[in-house]
Amino acid sequence: MADKIFRVNMSTLSTAIEDVPANWNGLGGRGLTSTIVAAEVEPTCHPLGGKNKLIFAPGMLSGTVAANSGRLSVGAKSPLTGTIKEANAGGTAAQMLARIGCKALIIEGLPQGDTWYNILISADTITLSEETELVGKGNFDVVTAVQGRTSEKHGIMTIGPAGEMKMHSANISIKDPDSRLRSCGRGGLGAVMGSKQIKYIAIEPTEAKVEIADPDKFKEANRTFTKALVDNPISQALGTYGTNVLVNIINEAGALPTRNFTSGQFDGHEEISGETMHDTIVEREGKPKHNCHTGCVIQCSQIYNDSDKKYKTSGFEYESIWAMGADCCVDNLDQIAEADHLMDDIGIDTIETSVAMGVAMEGGVLEFGDGEGICRILREDIAKGTALGRIIGCGAGSVGRAYGVTRVPVVKNQAIPAYDPRAIKGIGITYATSTQGADHTMGYTIATNILGVGGSVDPLSHEGQVELSRNLQIATAAIDSTGMCLFIAFAALDDETCLPALVDMINARFGINLVAEDVTNLGISILKTERAFNEAAGFTNKDDRLPEFFSEEPIAPHNVVWDISDEEIDTFWNF
Amino acid sequence: MADKIFRVNMSTLSTAIEDVPANWNGLGGRGLTSTIVAAEVEPTCHPLGGKNKLIFAPGMLSGTVAANSGRLSVGAKSPLTGTIKEANAGGTAAQMLARIGCKALIIEGLPQGDTWYNILISADTITLSEETELVGKGNFDVVTAVQGRTSEKHGIMTIGPAGEMKMHSANISIKDPDSRLRSCGRGGLGAVMGSKQIKYIAIEPTEAKVEIADPDKFKEANRTFTKALVDNPISQALGTYGTNVLVNIINEAGALPTRNFTSGQFDGHEEISGETMHDTIVEREGKPKHNCHTGCVIQCSQIYNDSDKKYKTSGFEYESIWAMGADCCVDNLDQIAEADHLMDDIGIDTIETSVAMGVAMEGGVLEFGDGEGICRILREDIAKGTALGRIIGCGAGSVGRAYGVTRVPVVKNQAIPAYDPRAIKGIGITYATSTQGADHTMGYTIATNILGVGGSVDPLSHEGQVELSRNLQIATAAIDSTGMCLFIAFAALDDETCLPALVDMINARFGINLVAEDVTNLGISILKTERAFNEAAGFTNKDDRLPEFFSEEPIAPHNVVWDISDEEIDTFWNF
Repeated sequence: MADKIFRVNMSTLSTAIEDVPANWNGLGGRGLTSTIVAAEVEPTCHPLGGKNKLIFAPGMLSGTVAANSGRLSVGAKSPLTGTIKEANAGGTAAQMLARIGCKALIIEGLPQGDTWYNILISADTITLSEETELVGKGNFDVVTAVQGRTSEKHGIMTIGPAGEMKMHSANISIKDPDSRLRSCGRGGLGAVMGSKQIKYIAIEPTEAKVEIADPDKFKEANRTFTKALVDNPISQALGTYGTNVLVNIINEAGALPTRNFTSGQFDGHEEISGETMHDTIVEREGKPKHNCHTGCVIQCSQIYNDSDKKYKTSGFEYESIWAMGADCCVDNLDQIAEADHLMDDIGIDTIETSVAMGVAMEGGVLEFGDGEGICRILREDIAKGTALGRIIGCGAGSVGRAYGVTRVPVVKNQAIPAYDPRAIKGIGITYATSTQGADHTMGYTIATNILGVGGSVDPLSHEGQVELSRNLQIATAAIDSTGMCLFIAFAALDDETCLPALVDMINARFGINLVAEDVTNLGISILKTERAFNEAAGFTNKDDRLPEFFSEEPIAPHNVVWDISDEEIDTFWNF
Repeated sequence: MADKIFRVNMSTLSTAIEDVPANWNGLGGRGLTSTIVAAEVEPTCHPLGGKNKLIFAPGMLSGTVAANSGRLSVGAKSPLTGTIKEANAGGTAAQMLARIGCKALIIEGLPQGDTWYNILISADTITLSEETELVGKGNFDVVTAVQGRTSEKHGIMTIGPAGEMKMHSANISIKDPDSRLRSCGRGGLGAVMGSKQIKYIAIEPTEAKVEIADPDKFKEANRTFTKALVDNPISQALGTYGTNVLVNIINEAGALPTRNFTSGQFDGHEEISGETMHDTIVEREGKPKHNCHTGCVIQCSQIYNDSDKKYKTSGFEYESIWAMGADCCVDNLDQIAEADHLMDDIGIDTIETSVAMGVAMEGGVLEFGDGEGICRILREDIAKGTALGRIIGCGAGSVGRAYGVTRVPVVKNQAIPAYDPRAIKGIGITYATSTQGADHTMGYTIATNILGVGGSVDPLSHEGQVELSRNLQIATAAIDSTGMCLFIAFAALDDETCLPALVDMINARFGINLVAEDVTNLGISILKTERAFNEAAGFTNKDDRLPEFFSEEPIAPHNVVWDISDEEIDTFWNF
């Protein structure tokens, strides 16, 4: 059965299952969401108006047994940045969508009136129903209730109160194999889903399998690919300590933004480090290793229990822990875990919201270090939509504007994550030039600047940073289209068997004959499509800049400023 | 004595009185503020950071006896729009600055720490002093206190709590001859003054007069000019009913934006009209006629008393009354007057703040028609800087973002004032193309579209709107440089003696020989300077657009949408 495009029009409350246009055939994940957004969304439209569309697309390999191939891409014009946006996450949805033959789900239009809806999709039907019971509910309640209505095997994509209130940091949550949540976190895509008044989308399970053109070749390639992932030392560290292994590494590098980006090292780093987290998890009988989707062999997730050994949170990432921890000066991992859990339930991006809290602390809203205060604001203000909740829920830029703070770490209005660009200059190029606002995952130069993966580029030097970021951004755009987790990049950069095996799997899946260069060209094409959308929306090279405080305030311990010239940044797009 | 540039550096707490650079010599008012901003301010800088500068400049004829020549221009990069910005007002400051030989006052840098300052300037000194007593005080208290410290004759330019809190709608208030306030209202220039931690600037009175190169010629030209103003029927209507004469006229034209821009007519228009206001003022023994600066012969201001015949407000303008009235559906002139008084005291733009209230009403923050609620939010939230106060105090765009409202009438994030562009298309071109965000005063096509001044252009037709707006924007930029009130334009457009007399006055003042074409060229040059600044700040033609709801929602009673194409809008800049 050929893959189809599933389309829901909320203006007319109609649905359709359509053939895939020929030029979308070879695409998946980010490559597909960005292509559809560019083709069907007016670049200057209001992100929360009737002209924006929300696109869900599994990756090219999602639904197969390929290791780590379960990422789901969600795309739209972002209410936070005004740019094109793709956010991806694990969970079960990508694999389930692929198996029912859904190449992409496109949600367009806006409903009349205040009625909310839910969507149930299967291989051949899309059912749009009115929703009342779950409006206003947190994501965890939604998952429980929807599983009650359907089954534990159903896939679920949902928004919490933040998305309903159209907060610009609202995310879209994807149910994972344990009925917990993974987040398409950045750029406020939950607000787009909220604007369309859709509380959740459920996916009916199927016995059907994704068709593989050459099963033997696929199996063989997957074996090689999996071995490369499993053997990689960074994969192994991620499995042991989670992404939070980075707290001590980045602190040591002097690039752990602390106290709203006024220092590069945090006195409390040991208290929130991956090592401490690992020991705490073991002591409390949680799980240090956990997969966000079936088939993941890295297992960087974990189950973090509270002091009563009861489940508190999972998918407890370095960037979230950094943001609530070092950036807000909170050195208490339990408070951070509580905040992480609350944000997952409210459905709001942990990076954006926590960086916003740091700016709010500088603006005098609460004291640095006040982890209890963060949790209180999450519960009492953001979840309930008070005025303060809406200011913080609309992100770091919003807080800066409301409180007159000028030290606001954002690019294209999206919060800069856990790596200070003054001390790791490659990532600064990524923040500045990314088509989607500041986002470390768009071109993770930390690999080469700090971890020595894919060569070595001195983080403090100008040299090679633009080229490094460019190569990684191109590769990332391609990887984000395959359905692969970005963490395959560590093996891909250092193990020469990995990338060819990935290309072989794509070829075996579709019965085609791509070479490595085709993958690079795919990445280039995606970046250019995204950039063209942004230019048509009014973005210029003036938007490819870091906030001026990075050039003016040296950061300890290296006492360095951001000093890559505008002209050098602009060479990024010379390809 | 030659005019000088007065300069205050808040980073070093130093002051200087400098010679005027040759290329600034022929400039004044907006022409000078925009030239200085373009020359000295980095276009991409943070508007509230150390690289922005705040410029005060009297007009070319300010300080002379020329009728209506007492406007003061204030310029900077705007925190509201991100564009270059000039806002002008009457009051006594322009004339006093001109008489002490201050061609422009430039305030640059940012102080270290939290100390606030005041500035006292005289012909040969600038005194920067620490300020504690008046921090947090409203503008009326500031005027009383500063007059107590200095004299009743001193000029005063001040910010209220809104400016101190760096709200993006904060204005700068200028003392008028009765020790009341006129506002440099739009674009948040009060926040720029607040960022520099200057509470007020006082100007010492002088006996000195502005030098006139040819006094006889000047006197003669002023006589002709004054007669043209006084004889003009619109000048006369403005003197009788104030600018609020427009409520009934614009309602009749179906262009009075009502209930957050969902209708073009307001049922309660009679209750808030200029005619009702005039009768109320007379009955309560106020003054229907009042001048905002010495030498004004139009006298469109007034003293509006409360029901106890006690002073309530003055400078009670059509656009403010429309915004709190029709746009928020408040049909009670006393509530509107109370709100106007509160906004003047808090130091916040009446247009931006009231349009923001309308968007907040749509967002469910308060009910349409709740005039008491508006006053309560002004007193309890904006004045005190609560979270809600900060959302509304940062303008209509801010409220739209916080509450997920898409019907947000702004261009370049500045609120659209009192004339619906669907029903008066010429003003839509001005809103879209203005270098400073939506602003009716930038090219007041209402004159020709509705009032039949300067010819007649059908407000509902496409034809001639771009040319009309262009000609008026060019003329306005020039008029804003002379120190003249914009209301001279009615006479200038219809009385052939008026404009030559104005040119003669400029020639007589400086001993030069401009012709009418030179004035046009000045206007062109100012617009191009401003546009170039904005382009360097990252603005493109994509920013020269009205919000999409204007194209999608027909407005009663004409049931028309905004239908001038992007291509046609872009022809505006073909000069």
